[in-house]
Amino acid sequence: MPRFRTPEVTVQRLSIYLRAIEKLDKDEILSSQRLAELVGTSDGQVRKDLAYFGEFGVPGQGYKVGKLIEEISHILGLDKDQRIALVGVGKLGSALLGYPGFKTKGFKIKAAFDNDPSKVGKTWQGVTIQNVQKIPRFVSQEKIHIGIVTTPAAAAQEAADKLVEGGVKGILNFAPIRIVVPDHIKLRNVDLAIQLEGLSYFLTQLGP
Amino acid sequence: MPRFRTPEVTVQRLSIYLRAIEKLDKDEILSSQRLAELVGTSDGQVRKDLAYFGEFGVPGQGYKVGKLIEEISHILGLDKDQRIALVGVGKLGSALLGYPGFKTKGFKIKAAFDNDPSKVGKTWQGVTIQNVQKIPRFVSQEKIHIGIVTTPAAAAQEAADKLVEGGVKGILNFAPIRIVVPDHIKLRNVDLAIQLEGLSYFLTQLGP
Repeated sequence: MPRFRTPEVTVQRLSIYLRAIEKLDKDEILSSQRLAELVGTSDGQVRKDLAYFGEFGVPGQGYKVGKLIEEISHILGLDKDQRIALVGVGKLGSALLGYPGFKTKGFKIKAAFDNDPSKVGKTWQGVTIQNVQKIPRFVSQEKIHIGIVTTPAAAAQEAADKLVEGGVKGILNFAPIRIVVPDHIKLRNVDLAIQLEGLSYFLTQLGP
Repeated sequence: MPRFRTPEVTVQRLSIYLRAIEKLDKDEILSSQRLAELVGTSDGQVRKDLAYFGEFGVPGQGYKVGKLIEEISHILGLDKDQRIALVGVGKLGSALLGYPGFKTKGFKIKAAFDNDPSKVGKTWQGVTIQNVQKIPRFVSQEKIHIGIVTTPAAAAQEAADKLVEGGVKGILNFAPIRIVVPDHIKLRNVDLAIQLEGLSYFLTQLGP
């Protein structure tokens, strides 16, 4: 079920702030107004979002870039490695195994699983593909907290079940189907068509 | 540049409402409260979002599911085919060419381009891969309005330039780099790590 409680939106904005400031000089002092301009939002929104996590600006001046990067990274848990298992090494799974944007944020895909015997045992992007039956034990032993599901729709629920059995705390689901997990597991569904729909909307406004 | 003006957030919620109601009985009358529950937001938010696009509920009762699906699909431009060109047929590009969630929403990838001679001329998911040099002419002739960039970072700007030259109005960029387009082109950057960061945040709150 897609959800969008306020905290999730705020958390997503933290990721966007982080991307906007990462390339700035670490010693620069950034006003909330300037940060708002960088990402295309309002001054007030920036102050409200950041105040939500405590005071880390210099009153009357702004935020030191280096400090702000450090704080946001800490809030998002990016200052420590996050161990991930990926299930479903098809086209999308293979693409994610090599996705450069994960590694730079501390997301380490430690294991990959597939139910296709012709893939099991092969190594891709430094990760050896294992049989899906091994998910619960491996996830538990290696203390993996995040699972990524990139299987076809028909295999997604089983993949999620095995990840949960192994003890993951969160699942990112790319399979085009709703999966069901216990309440204490955090589930995010990624629907790539939503991004296209946003574009489609704006193009529709332009007229034919 | 990532942006999140109010309309974009509202538009994204329309996509989420649409997913929530698509599987309901078309004749059901849905209250804004019930729709809010389905997606995990507030009653007021639903009414505010939908009022933004005019009146299409029955006062005091709610929205007829079939009518609401039709209206939202129309607003998002999903009631007509959207012609798309994809540039960069690597792992991610290949995955998107076969992504089932695009086809069901009327997004048709009509052409795929790559600069690798060993890929050019081959057919994948019913689409024949062409040389990137052919982008401007093909996009223009076939009246393609949306481009998807799934090249490596180093090739993304050139891909975008050629798509713009051909006359696309919007670009969805998956390449891990900022690309620059003229002001009249709508650009959306997809950063798959942002979804993981959201999960990471919530897991961090759980403690070690």
